[in-house]
Amino acid sequence: MAEEKRLVEEITPMEEDFAKWYTDIVKKAELVEYSRVRGCMVIRPYGYAIWENIQKELDARFKATGHENVYMPMFIPESLLQKEKDHVEGFAPEVAWVTHGGSEELAERLCVRPTSETLFCDHYAQIVQSYRDLPKLYNQWCSVVRWEKTSRPFLRSVEFLWQEGHTLHETEQEAIEETERMLNLYADFCENFLAIPVVKGRKTESDKFAGAVMTYAIEALMHDGKALQCGTSHYFGDGFARAFDITFQARDNSRQHPFQTSWGMSTRIIGGIIMSHGDNSGLVLPPYVAPVQVIIVPIATHKEGVIEKAREIEERLKKVCRVKTDTTDNSPGWKFAEYEMKGVPLRLEIGPKDIEKNQCVIVRRDNREKVFVSLDELESKVPELLQAVHDGLYEKALKRRENMTYTATTFEEFAKIAAENPGFIKAMWCGDEACEQEIKEKTQVSSRCIPFEQEHLSDTCVCCGKKAEHMVYWGKAY
Amino acid sequence: MAEEKRLVEEITPMEEDFAKWYTDIVKKAELVEYSRVRGCMVIRPYGYAIWENIQKELDARFKATGHENVYMPMFIPESLLQKEKDHVEGFAPEVAWVTHGGSEELAERLCVRPTSETLFCDHYAQIVQSYRDLPKLYNQWCSVVRWEKTSRPFLRSVEFLWQEGHTLHETEQEAIEETERMLNLYADFCENFLAIPVVKGRKTESDKFAGAVMTYAIEALMHDGKALQCGTSHYFGDGFARAFDITFQARDNSRQHPFQTSWGMSTRIIGGIIMSHGDNSGLVLPPYVAPVQVIIVPIATHKEGVIEKAREIEERLKKVCRVKTDTTDNSPGWKFAEYEMKGVPLRLEIGPKDIEKNQCVIVRRDNREKVFVSLDELESKVPELLQAVHDGLYEKALKRRENMTYTATTFEEFAKIAAENPGFIKAMWCGDEACEQEIKEKTQVSSRCIPFEQEHLSDTCVCCGKKAEHMVYWGKAY
Repeated sequence: MAEEKRLVEEITPMEEDFAKWYTDIVKKAELVEYSRVRGCMVIRPYGYAIWENIQKELDARFKATGHENVYMPMFIPESLLQKEKDHVEGFAPEVAWVTHGGSEELAERLCVRPTSETLFCDHYAQIVQSYRDLPKLYNQWCSVVRWEKTSRPFLRSVEFLWQEGHTLHETEQEAIEETERMLNLYADFCENFLAIPVVKGRKTESDKFAGAVMTYAIEALMHDGKALQCGTSHYFGDGFARAFDITFQARDNSRQHPFQTSWGMSTRIIGGIIMSHGDNSGLVLPPYVAPVQVIIVPIATHKEGVIEKAREIEERLKKVCRVKTDTTDNSPGWKFAEYEMKGVPLRLEIGPKDIEKNQCVIVRRDNREKVFVSLDELESKVPELLQAVHDGLYEKALKRRENMTYTATTFEEFAKIAAENPGFIKAMWCGDEACEQEIKEKTQVSSRCIPFEQEHLSDTCVCCGKKAEHMVYWGKAY
Repeated sequence: MAEEKRLVEEITPMEEDFAKWYTDIVKKAELVEYSRVRGCMVIRPYGYAIWENIQKELDARFKATGHENVYMPMFIPESLLQKEKDHVEGFAPEVAWVTHGGSEELAERLCVRPTSETLFCDHYAQIVQSYRDLPKLYNQWCSVVRWEKTSRPFLRSVEFLWQEGHTLHETEQEAIEETERMLNLYADFCENFLAIPVVKGRKTESDKFAGAVMTYAIEALMHDGKALQCGTSHYFGDGFARAFDITFQARDNSRQHPFQTSWGMSTRIIGGIIMSHGDNSGLVLPPYVAPVQVIIVPIATHKEGVIEKAREIEERLKKVCRVKTDTTDNSPGWKFAEYEMKGVPLRLEIGPKDIEKNQCVIVRRDNREKVFVSLDELESKVPELLQAVHDGLYEKALKRRENMTYTATTFEEFAKIAAENPGFIKAMWCGDEACEQEIKEKTQVSSRCIPFEQEHLSDTCVCCGKKAEHMVYWGKAY
């Protein structure tokens, strides 16, 4: 028990210092280790296994919707980056530049990709000739680099892993549908795989991706009331196609520019998992993404038959979930704390008395509920309990978001909520960038999105009092 | 048929110009497109799908042998690269240097990883304390950059994709076993998954990896008689551990340096697949790695029931293989040529007459053998035929290697074979680097490996006539 205490004491409670709580979990659950390279992290086996599960599920969903994977170079020549005006303005200040190859200075410097629109466009210009070549539904899994001043594991780092989809379509309509399809795919993935409820909407003009006509995003609310953008989907119109001279022969034989989208989700979402579900005992993993879904802890391992029984249960459960048995000689108390820290959704305890009664004890990580399960029913009960943990986490996160979502109809009300209550603020907006800017400066919260599900809170803009155009979600964000 | 001709005519026969044949296939089978970035390629969907199948199989084999995946930063600070003397000498001349982040010049320049020994070592020094922390069996999937002057798709490029395993062990014995285990894993993968027979052996001193005590490699012989190194596995002793100050508390409480290995396989192996199995009609894919294993070509698609039957067969075959149906309005002849070019192992033709007889025609890509298969036996026959294609490809490649492997016992004999016959030359060697160098300079062939399976060809070195120590495989290499 001394060891258990030590382990648990090392996490700072989230109420005391949320940022410290976060980095404590990231380190103690062995997700990430800092590296000697400024702003770059080492993703350790347990953290990477989470990313692999995210990749596997997203990749299957991308392929089921007709997308194919490709791999583009990691370098972008400076002249290529500069082809789309807004895009280069957005990204040039934060890229890493390669200037030398071996001992030789390069004639043209190369940036390490911060995102790959320019490379995809350059490739599309080579391979697309006719409407028969469309749509192109490409995705790539890779790492990207953005020269950020500050960094926090998963949330903001110089290098991070992600997927970036880049698609090309015959018509505007088709491209907009794709943009929406992928946003919905991300939302469904967050809610039904990661148990993170999200608000779907579009970004304001000032908050769009560099070069996009429209940026859609999903926003989730973290434990501390700050918002995390979990995924984005951009509609580009034919702006990039014009800049990169991508044309195709249309059905009427005319030469036309195709319409384009891009969409991405990154390792940042792992930060979202931590801050959505974690508690003061450590990580809490939603079952579908957990590298280990059930940890079996044999009790009184020196007693005859206990380890054997644990192994037998492990073999049976392997068919229905990801399961591991801890047979090390650490104490049960130490193991309980360890796997709570690592956020394993279910702990299965089996000891001599349980064996006598042909049962085991299963403890849920999310609410610590303890149930006795007959060994005859293991294969049906465990998946049920995993689903129950998923549902429990989702409900809890949703309730928290509801409790932390406020409505403001006057500026005074807005400013008071922004100052006193972390969370989302719903308020009406005239659509004018000046009002958005004024709210941001005066209250330190920014527009998160114009949600697809609009509500009519009042007739007037919360800032200027003129006619309202949209209801907007506002909040502080990561 | 005009279209079919056009397509086939576009490949240069391998007898005429092997290098041109290779790049023709790479382009026409849509594996790769050149990019605007010197020496970097775009891996297109069909090429990337091959890499995904390689990844999936290798990754499963790595995990089955206890390895875990991690992700290290893509940048290495110059001072870190310099920590191991031989290593930096080997790699520094061919790395890409990042000197600026945004508009700011970096205090220390960073190279884009050419390989990650230094990063793994730095991480291991942080996380390894005791013998209980060993072994560490880590692997990473990533891209690496080596500033090569010349480049050819897959075979040699500035950026390429690979996996790099890095392991740390308590004892020398254990580390050497790991080095051998991984070489054997690679060899088994090449032979039983890619149908590429390989020679296993170790590199000579002059040909070792920069910083290694011993480098093992597998070598395969291509169509043109040149060798391709398909995978390598290195034993480092404790050299890196000393340079990076990695220590652990041993069982006897003393402080010790662990022993280390690394091993890698890259997208280069796709070049090996092309040059091992391809023919003058295009790519020939070994079945287990083929993105599409069976292509269904319905004949006389305008006739009632043909497309429906093809779809029905596709649905049934989906359970036992990767299958696609081509229902486009291209002619059957065009489709035949197209899927031959793409190397699809089996073509299944189904037309009105076949339907009447409750059969279909299946044509093997490797030898064009045509068989009639009863529709009742599809699910058992197709996997059998896929295995037959695999076996056929392996046998053909093995026979070719045997036919192109020569024995030389005198220098004159050696020089004559080297000048006239592409392929492997087996010859005895005294072990002296001077002889190795002399052979290389005078005959333009280099040592490929000292095979594990040694033969006694004569008592004396083929070069100096002194006592022979090893039999060596020699040849020209990619």
